[in-house]
Amino acid sequence: MFHEQEKAGIARLLRAVREKRPLVHCITNTVTVNDCANALLAVGAAPVMADDSGEAAEIAALANAVVLNIGTLNAVTIPSMFLAGKSAAALGRPVVLDPVGAGASRLRTETALRLVGEVPFAVIRGNASEIKTLCAGSGTTRGVDADERDLDAGGLEALSAMAGGLARKTGAVVAVTGPTDILSDGKRFVAVRNGHPLMSRITGSGCMLSAVIGGFCGASPERLFEAVAAALCTLGLAGERAAQRAESLGTGSFRTALIDSLSLMDDAALAGGMKLERLA
Amino acid sequence: MFHEQEKAGIARLLRAVREKRPLVHCITNTVTVNDCANALLAVGAAPVMADDSGEAAEIAALANAVVLNIGTLNAVTIPSMFLAGKSAAALGRPVVLDPVGAGASRLRTETALRLVGEVPFAVIRGNASEIKTLCAGSGTTRGVDADERDLDAGGLEALSAMAGGLARKTGAVVAVTGPTDILSDGKRFVAVRNGHPLMSRITGSGCMLSAVIGGFCGASPERLFEAVAAALCTLGLAGERAAQRAESLGTGSFRTALIDSLSLMDDAALAGGMKLERLA
Amino acid sequence: MFHEQEKAGIARLLRAVREKRPLVHCITNTVTVNDCANALLAVGAAPVMADDSGEAAEIAALANAVVLNIGTLNAVTIPSMFLAGKSAAALGRPVVLDPVGAGASRLRTETALRLVGEVPFAVIRGNASEIKTLCAGSGTTRGVDADERDLDAGGLEALSAMAGGLARKTGAVVAVTGPTDILSDGKRFVAVRNGHPLMSRITGSGCMLSAVIGGFCGASPERLFEAVAAALCTLGLAGERAAQRAESLGTGSFRTALIDSLSLMDDAALAGGMKLERLA
Repeated sequence: MFHEQEKAGIARLLRAVREKRPLVHCITNTVTVNDCANALLAVGAAPVMADDSGEAAEIAALANAVVLNIGTLNAVTIPSMFLAGKSAAALGRPVVLDPVGAGASRLRTETALRLVGEVPFAVIRGNASEIKTLCAGSGTTRGVDADERDLDAGGLEALSAMAGGLARKTGAVVAVTGPTDILSDGKRFVAVRNGHPLMSRITGSGCMLSAVIGGFCGASPERLFEAVAAALCTLGLAGERAAQRAESLGTGSFRTALIDSLSLMDDAALAGGMKLERLA
Repeated sequence: MFHEQEKAGIARLLRAVREKRPLVHCITNTVTVNDCANALLAVGAAPVMADDSGEAAEIAALANAVVLNIGTLNAVTIPSMFLAGKSAAALGRPVVLDPVGAGASRLRTETALRLVGEVPFAVIRGNASEIKTLCAGSGTTRGVDADERDLDAGGLEALSAMAGGLARKTGAVVAVTGPTDILSDGKRFVAVRNGHPLMSRITGSGCMLSAVIGGFCGASPERLFEAVAAALCTLGLAGERAAQRAESLGTGSFRTALIDSLSLMDDAALAGGMKLERLA
Repeated sequence: MFHEQEKAGIARLLRAVREKRPLVHCITNTVTVNDCANALLAVGAAPVMADDSGEAAEIAALANAVVLNIGTLNAVTIPSMFLAGKSAAALGRPVVLDPVGAGASRLRTETALRLVGEVPFAVIRGNASEIKTLCAGSGTTRGVDADERDLDAGGLEALSAMAGGLARKTGAVVAVTGPTDILSDGKRFVAVRNGHPLMSRITGSGCMLSAVIGGFCGASPERLFEAVAAALCTLGLAGERAAQRAESLGTGSFRTALIDSLSLMDDAALAGGMKLERLA
């Protein structure tokens, strides 16, 4: 378990986002790009979305972190992702990969694998099917959601092994997110049990999480592992609080309440509500 | 009129969506793509948005239904629409066309007509001006909303004739939607009187309807006519309920309440509230 | 100060939007395109989004006003902006420029400057950094938000000089927006003090403002200066009212309440709440 003091230290990373207001350059998908921008603003970061290859490297060089999300990748945005990722990494800025739907099409799988091969990611966050695809080099995801077989196959131990293996292979902090999130840098293994089932009944929960991870990493690049843990707890706890307020109202209200909860979260509430656990 | 038992049978198609959780591949517009994804999730379907030609056919082949919406068609997405539509149709999966703004530009009119010529659509849903354009092979729509002259010209009888004619010509179930929706497969003619005027004061009502039609057809491909009827009633009734809750609050709250109502709708409420009527 | 009668005259321009329902063609960004459409509908205008070069000129020619927003400009949409802008201007329709992030990348700066050089804009609206970039022909904006140094540098007098200079150079009405908005046509100088700090904690406030300016100018093209003033007051006052209702709930609720307030605004409330002041 985490001591109270450790939790308080992790929760203070939220305050760091609010104080430093990191600029987060997202090349993301058209479905949830507005949610990502509003989630970043809600936690205190400054979003900038720019996906043309004519400016991707230049904007990335201005940013404190870059988030690459392949949710609606296309011929225009794929080259921009490589340009932005390499530009930021060359300056030592954290780059986050969200391999949405890796395994669902050759284009997604190959693009995600090429990105992992060419960009030194600081963080890779995906669901069980996506991370499994990155580990295996191929996949059979149904759409962009986690395949239930992948969630059930072996439980937390199997997910931890996958996360740890990918982390060692890539040098990135790897987060496999789902009902329980697993976080590993190859040596440390942490489970995060925040969150609420309603989060999977709206689009954008995963994308917002990756964007918010960019915000936390951009504010605290020297503490990446803790920054990702703090982001997972922040979004999960915001989901719990949003469900308390809006579950009976419906999923439209839940979506609004999720952004509300992010914007109202402070580090005391976060420290009190985070459900972090060391594994192994 | 429809018997209670018939209504209950149609309403059970909502339960089928929730039980089967069909994967619905949408190639849609950037304006309402988030609304479409959230509307599909609210009724119990699983959305996947993917519009690059490098993966459109492959993603469509994974899906239970495909929805093609030309709201912000462009040089990148038009070829993808043909690939996705043909891929799904070849596998016997229902493909839905939403010819947004057909008649407003040559590009829209020609693309919609070419799609109708090359893809065997299961369903075509549009407003009076768009369907008129598809029937006539040309059009004079003002923007993407129905031209009031088209709504007024001849009333339900003229709309029914148009819907029936296009249905016979294409083999698709055709829905002409507006204050009253007309549904025809060329033989049967049904009017749906659910809905609320506030639905035209937010963007996305029509796009969400086409997406949700994809969800119902993906869950019940053997009962396409009833599936479309159920979708029209579901979204219309959700609009009525959202207006009850949010009309005095404003159109932002109405939009949220519409997704809420979709997510809370069950088949008993749907059977009780559907306003279906046989014509001629 | 403005007399009550002058204020009432400006506020009546909101009624003109509701009565004429101008069609506003927006080529805008993927982040806030949905917000722009809903904001236009809320004030009574009809949005149409169309950004392919194959239809941009044709759609623009149907519209009462065109809004060009470079927030996520790319190789596909940049040529469309020139086509749409020139098409509308040739027909005497007002064209609005929102040079989002001008100064943040060469692509943005050069595109904005080329647009200003080739399209006779009726209105240019941007934050202090963006307008400064257009005046100087180069810039150093951090991301897409105003640089604090630009806000602080010289206060309202410096902003007025910039706005007036750009207005005289381009023939456009220029609005430099921020905590206080400055409006000038090169001769007249007006400050608008409506608005609320929460507007900068959600994405889209600036984009919605530019879209709404398009709505007001499309309805009253013969009174452009007053139309822009009315739009600035309308969105700012809607922000104040939204904050009254939603500030304690969070930024998600504020965003919803902002659209609500726009949809509920009438010209009496607008006349009563507008904070307009003549400068110099």
